[in-house]
Amino acid sequence: MSIILDTTLRDGSYSNFFQFSISDVVKIVTGLKKAGIGYIEIGHGVGLGASEKGYGKSLHTDEEYISETKKNIDGAKFGAFCIPGIAELDALRMAADYEMDFVRIGTDVTKIKSSEPFIKLAKKKNMFVSANFMKSYALDAEQFAMKVLESESYGADLVYLVDSSGGMIPSDIEKYYNEVRKKTSIPLGFHGHNNLGMAIANSIYAYELGFEFIDTSLQGLGRSSGNAPTELLIALLMKKYDVRKYDMFKLLEIGAEYVRSFIKINGYRALDIISGYSDFHTSYMPFIHDICSETNVNPLELIMKYSEIDKVNMDLERLRQIASNLTESKKDLKIFDFKSYYGGEQGVQKSSK
Amino acid sequence: MSIILDTTLRDGSYSNFFQFSISDVVKIVTGLKKAGIGYIEIGHGVGLGASEKGYGKSLHTDEEYISETKKNIDGAKFGAFCIPGIAELDALRMAADYEMDFVRIGTDVTKIKSSEPFIKLAKKKNMFVSANFMKSYALDAEQFAMKVLESESYGADLVYLVDSSGGMIPSDIEKYYNEVRKKTSIPLGFHGHNNLGMAIANSIYAYELGFEFIDTSLQGLGRSSGNAPTELLIALLMKKYDVRKYDMFKLLEIGAEYVRSFIKINGYRALDIISGYSDFHTSYMPFIHDICSETNVNPLELIMKYSEIDKVNMDLERLRQIASNLTESKKDLKIFDFKSYYGGEQGVQKSSK
Repeated sequence: MSIILDTTLRDGSYSNFFQFSISDVVKIVTGLKKAGIGYIEIGHGVGLGASEKGYGKSLHTDEEYISETKKNIDGAKFGAFCIPGIAELDALRMAADYEMDFVRIGTDVTKIKSSEPFIKLAKKKNMFVSANFMKSYALDAEQFAMKVLESESYGADLVYLVDSSGGMIPSDIEKYYNEVRKKTSIPLGFHGHNNLGMAIANSIYAYELGFEFIDTSLQGLGRSSGNAPTELLIALLMKKYDVRKYDMFKLLEIGAEYVRSFIKINGYRALDIISGYSDFHTSYMPFIHDICSETNVNPLELIMKYSEIDKVNMDLERLRQIASNLTESKKDLKIFDFKSYYGGEQGVQKSSK
Repeated sequence: MSIILDTTLRDGSYSNFFQFSISDVVKIVTGLKKAGIGYIEIGHGVGLGASEKGYGKSLHTDEEYISETKKNIDGAKFGAFCIPGIAELDALRMAADYEMDFVRIGTDVTKIKSSEPFIKLAKKKNMFVSANFMKSYALDAEQFAMKVLESESYGADLVYLVDSSGGMIPSDIEKYYNEVRKKTSIPLGFHGHNNLGMAIANSIYAYELGFEFIDTSLQGLGRSSGNAPTELLIALLMKKYDVRKYDMFKLLEIGAEYVRSFIKINGYRALDIISGYSDFHTSYMPFIHDICSETNVNPLELIMKYSEIDKVNMDLERLRQIASNLTESKKDLKIFDFKSYYGGEQGVQKSSK
């Protein structure tokens, strides 16, 4: 039986540019807990330290979100996201002072080395520690499984398969699961996005496979196309898998009353869909916008071509070079709704050439 | 290889209360055709005759939608929906005069007898005829397969499994498919809704099983939680199944430019989710609203309890009786967004008691 980890207040904070009030936090945490959700992630969408480091100023500080959640958590577990480099180790020490239960150390799947000191400190502080492998699709299943062993050697209690651009299907998830299980029995989590409409189906399949943790958010609130909606996953588990431990009505009500109004994106954005198709991280969207404005190329084509070469990093020199080889498009950039994207948190790197 | 049938202009017309302009029709039909979509459904969401029969006045008449589509269809196939009783046989004669290529005769899966004269006339007029079994989930797979044989005996070329309330999962679809295939090789279609977030996954699974037709709509535009989005299904078929016959960029662009702004529902409505959970048809939502206003019961509970007894018909006497046995709720009905539902097209019937 998978554990549901709700990330409405963390991944969902992208949708309001990190402006959740303490009142939002208290209402949502209390509602989730009453509905039977045992793990709740809170704080800035880009994790500890992000607000001060220029990744979007949040309405409250990390410490305020953590201390107020602690006051209201009443038996459930709460935690935060933490990207090494954006977060410093001191952030973990602060969180530990409030007895934060878990932390999720997020790194690109290709760069997990940076997680080692964070995992070790968090373990020393008695937290339950997850290593979240962002852009997991950048490695094949066998390479991924080797990284899982590495995280386990750092002390991680749990490793997440992260479909950052929502382009996976169940058979992909099965491959990753099977390769990991050949090597280790460390608990696994799945974090899906909905770019190709598969977040719920992938999460249900992860449940069937035996993933120990599955991420959801009320109304699917989250970056880009959003996450697997908590309400839908619970409804399916109750309808088709005879799960009885959650209060579905409560989840539907708090989703409707406290969360749905935060959803500002209607329908499916073309840029989310092409990102799912291409395994492209939407945090790079501002760079796509800038290059397309300069060169008049079609952003759909640019994203697709760039991702054929690199699914992890953003190299502006290479992006510009690819754009220079594309023909001009007559599409008005306005139809792509670039302004609705937050971005930049994954950084830019110099060309490796 | 399944054929994609796009129903943006038909099922999607629920989303603007049947107000598509001729300009919308021309732009969307032309775009779909250019993108490689071969079957396009148009006209009033409730089908031929619905506008005059009081099921929501459409901006144009059936004849106007049909004649303007005919002028622009240029090699693709077009058709309309037709519910016997709402449509009269003369509507088929009119459509035939414009050489409409296909018609889909929609009846509740339990009431297909009424389709017989419509199927027979449409065949006589050389149309390709589909029998769409609304609320297919009301019968189990074996009973469903018997109904398929009956439709085939009337002359239907194709029968649709219709997940009207979006509560199915792939294993359900497989059961229906296998039972039908034990008895007949008549082509099958799948029409899914997204109440539990499974429209795309179910449609992809139907593709894998070998369904001959799959319904989609741009942006998922459609009644209730909407349909499987055309753009997403094509993106997945290209990414994971090596399908190469569609122009994905074109689909993303016309979805963004011509269709996305029609989506007025953000997030996931609690009433859609409970409908998917319960196999409840959202066309009955106005009755739920009225009874809940009178009695202060929780609409989520009322829908669930009613559907345990009847998944096909709306019997107001029974609904009121069920409500009288529920405890009062303190939830403000406003959180459920009843006003965003169109409804009533499935009619009401007297209590069978």
